[in-house]
Amino acid sequence: MAKQSKKDSLIEFKEKLKELAHLKSAFSVLHWDKEVYMPAQGNKPRAETLAYLSGELHQKFLSSKFKKLLEASKDRMAKGELTPEESAIVREVRREFERESKMPLEFVKELTRVTAEAHWVWAEARKKSDFRIFLPYLKKIVELKRKEAEFAGFKNSPYDALLDVYEPCATAEEISVILEELKQFLVPFLKKIQTSSRQINPQILKGNFSIEKQKEFGKLVLEKMGFSFEAGRLDTSTHPFTIAHHPYDVRITSRYDKNNLFYSLSSTIHEAGHALYEQGLLAENFGTPLGESVSLGVHESQSRVWENIVAKNKPFWRYFYPILQQKFKEPFQKISIDDFYPALNSVQPGFIRTEADEITYNLHIILRFEIEKALIEGTIAVENLPLIWNEKVKELLGLEAPNDAMGVLQDVHWSGGGIGYFPTYTLGNLYSAQFYETAKRDVLNLEDEIAAGEFGHFRNWLRKKIHIHGKFYRASDLVYNITGEKLNSRYFIEYLKKKYGEIYEL
Amino acid sequence: MAKQSKKDSLIEFKEKLKELAHLKSAFSVLHWDKEVYMPAQGNKPRAETLAYLSGELHQKFLSSKFKKLLEASKDRMAKGELTPEESAIVREVRREFERESKMPLEFVKELTRVTAEAHWVWAEARKKSDFRIFLPYLKKIVELKRKEAEFAGFKNSPYDALLDVYEPCATAEEISVILEELKQFLVPFLKKIQTSSRQINPQILKGNFSIEKQKEFGKLVLEKMGFSFEAGRLDTSTHPFTIAHHPYDVRITSRYDKNNLFYSLSSTIHEAGHALYEQGLLAENFGTPLGESVSLGVHESQSRVWENIVAKNKPFWRYFYPILQQKFKEPFQKISIDDFYPALNSVQPGFIRTEADEITYNLHIILRFEIEKALIEGTIAVENLPLIWNEKVKELLGLEAPNDAMGVLQDVHWSGGGIGYFPTYTLGNLYSAQFYETAKRDVLNLEDEIAAGEFGHFRNWLRKKIHIHGKFYRASDLVYNITGEKLNSRYFIEYLKKKYGEIYEL
Repeated sequence: MAKQSKKDSLIEFKEKLKELAHLKSAFSVLHWDKEVYMPAQGNKPRAETLAYLSGELHQKFLSSKFKKLLEASKDRMAKGELTPEESAIVREVRREFERESKMPLEFVKELTRVTAEAHWVWAEARKKSDFRIFLPYLKKIVELKRKEAEFAGFKNSPYDALLDVYEPCATAEEISVILEELKQFLVPFLKKIQTSSRQINPQILKGNFSIEKQKEFGKLVLEKMGFSFEAGRLDTSTHPFTIAHHPYDVRITSRYDKNNLFYSLSSTIHEAGHALYEQGLLAENFGTPLGESVSLGVHESQSRVWENIVAKNKPFWRYFYPILQQKFKEPFQKISIDDFYPALNSVQPGFIRTEADEITYNLHIILRFEIEKALIEGTIAVENLPLIWNEKVKELLGLEAPNDAMGVLQDVHWSGGGIGYFPTYTLGNLYSAQFYETAKRDVLNLEDEIAAGEFGHFRNWLRKKIHIHGKFYRASDLVYNITGEKLNSRYFIEYLKKKYGEIYEL
Repeated sequence: MAKQSKKDSLIEFKEKLKELAHLKSAFSVLHWDKEVYMPAQGNKPRAETLAYLSGELHQKFLSSKFKKLLEASKDRMAKGELTPEESAIVREVRREFERESKMPLEFVKELTRVTAEAHWVWAEARKKSDFRIFLPYLKKIVELKRKEAEFAGFKNSPYDALLDVYEPCATAEEISVILEELKQFLVPFLKKIQTSSRQINPQILKGNFSIEKQKEFGKLVLEKMGFSFEAGRLDTSTHPFTIAHHPYDVRITSRYDKNNLFYSLSSTIHEAGHALYEQGLLAENFGTPLGESVSLGVHESQSRVWENIVAKNKPFWRYFYPILQQKFKEPFQKISIDDFYPALNSVQPGFIRTEADEITYNLHIILRFEIEKALIEGTIAVENLPLIWNEKVKELLGLEAPNDAMGVLQDVHWSGGGIGYFPTYTLGNLYSAQFYETAKRDVLNLEDEIAAGEFGHFRNWLRKKIHIHGKFYRASDLVYNITGEKLNSRYFIEYLKKKYGEIYEL
């Protein structure tokens, strides 16, 4: 009856955001359940329920009611009536709203339909190792993603518009510069490692490891890292992932190999890094962009800093290696930490990205980034991908790709329309090294603490500097605020140089 | 643009039902997760998400859009344009719609609020064994449930209006007659058993049973019963329950006691009986009343027929006892089946309903039914409940209740507003005996098959006769169609007389 006051419209706006958040939580629980515990026959009805929920989300987000509330909040922001936090919320919701409202419903439906089908076609093509099976779908997907970029709008490259979904406000140009620097270092550095006289045999780490004991060891590491089991779980699934229904309910999964315990341990620690970010968001910001991670690249920095910079280096193993030796006497009792450490970090170019070491991993990403950027910019044709892929594998990794399955067909991303996602993996590595250098300055005796199994100060540093801010800052501002510099490849290059220079006696 | 054809409105009506069903599925997965796997801190946000989803459901169901579609379908039904199945759908949705739309929103909110609080107050009162703590809440709940009956409307007793939610179209009067007959039999029969010279010691069944092995044995029984693990799961929770997200995704839980394997086995089989009903519904009817169970009483008949009439009798154990002896050598190797069988079925009046045997269980229900009917009809006062409870325990079970916790406070139902639910437990027993007698006539050598571990014909009989029909028939018509008689207590009384007459040599 009474005319609504301006304050009320902001409250109502936040309430609507919270409703959307509840729908998203419901969606994420159903998705988690599907991947982890759902019985096989539940697949079809569950897909329908998930489709219904995402339709509801889309409709409610783009409803005229929500639009009005967003407009009213924008007006108040323009008048300077909002707090900085409120302004950040409005800014970020508006970003997402504008992008989504530019996408015609028919287009969204077609993209959903094509990528759903493409997933199975890609799986079939990979099984048969035949790119031609996937080709018509990938062509269609590239075409649709170029359309998406047109709808979203961009200044320089259409690739910017796709990247923006994963790494808000980053541009193809910036990333090209950073990755080119990294490539200039990595390619000759890899050659040096390969021609080093130091021979390392990673096979000594293989064994016969009880899955139960692997899980126990994984849980011990998670507890030490500060992952809260009161606000989270660890389960098993085919592909490891982290999913947050709320900062108080963050779940990770891992998978296990009887012969290689580092297969699961690396994944578990990687996912726990993501999970600490999600548990570190402020519960009171749940449902608003302040309760969301700033970008995929920064998210990835949290998994990589734990998986690699912490857990593939000496201080970590000074604490954990005796425990590992105790738990898995065979083979570790007879391996000294001085033999264990290089074996854990041996460098070996291979065809498969997900099995790559810290050095070659980034060459896999650079390859994909260069290809997908060129695809979207229209400077290469989809038909030529296998050839281009194989040339780049040769150039970057010095290998001859044996077939499509181990080459251009190995990753699921493109089949799902996830073009623009790959570079965030390497951005994560760059961010992680840059953050870690700052943490070493800020946290007294950081590596001594790690070597004593104490991770509290480091975790709190990450939480205070990164997690609690959600999307309050842009990623580029956040990294500048924390480290005093823009994101660059220098810290990561220095880290690799020092570490692998020692290991390979370069 | 074009005027919608009548056919279209029916299709749209069914589509809306399906949307509601997806929301219900989402709700049920979130509820299951909460009870089974959710980390502790997830509780508060999850409660909010569940409240949001149930609000959405309520709002969508009572929306003017849905009402219009329902009205249009009703009109077509009146003109005889619908198939019998379509008419049944409209009939049942209308029943639910009319009831819900009669409840003022303020009333629904108050009931939700009061029962949510009452749950914790009840738990506290039970802990302290002090009815006075719970009294003001129970008074309020009885008052609200009487109001609910007024809103819903009724012919004879307000209790009818409450019963109707759980056992559609049943009346207090009918049930009173049936339960009175049963009581007239049970009270003297129990006395006879108690004064029998046959002494049975159920303690011989106790032991030290590995939980893992209990689970394995439970799974074996479930597989034999025909529970599909492709379309279902078995997990662990504090209170056993069955939940169906869809006929292709039906989940049961059990709980385990190291010293008593029948504690979990009975529950597991009980829940599997419910689950077979849910798995037996037709997937193509998902979302409509034809894809829902006919009544709680009939649902309970499916759990009771397996838990008691099948799995507490000789043919079942002729097959399973040797397997049990093999799996749990201690203590069963030295117990013959002739000593095992009476021990499994020993009768002993006790205070706690959920621990009661096949005879005394129904006396617990009769007690609750008489009390709650009188409360709603206003012939007794809530203040006097402990006194009335204790008198009835004395009259029916011959026991002196020691305190409120083991008396009037033992059940959770009333604190949640579940008045009218209790009689469905005993109706389940009556239905189960009546159905089983018919099955023995219809299925050649039924008990020989059971004794051979073959349950397929029996399960298919239940499916064909009961499950696949959903709510197509009313419960009273269904039981008449199947057995040729109205529901009555005769078959159950005969079953008890014969079984316990033999065991106690009466």
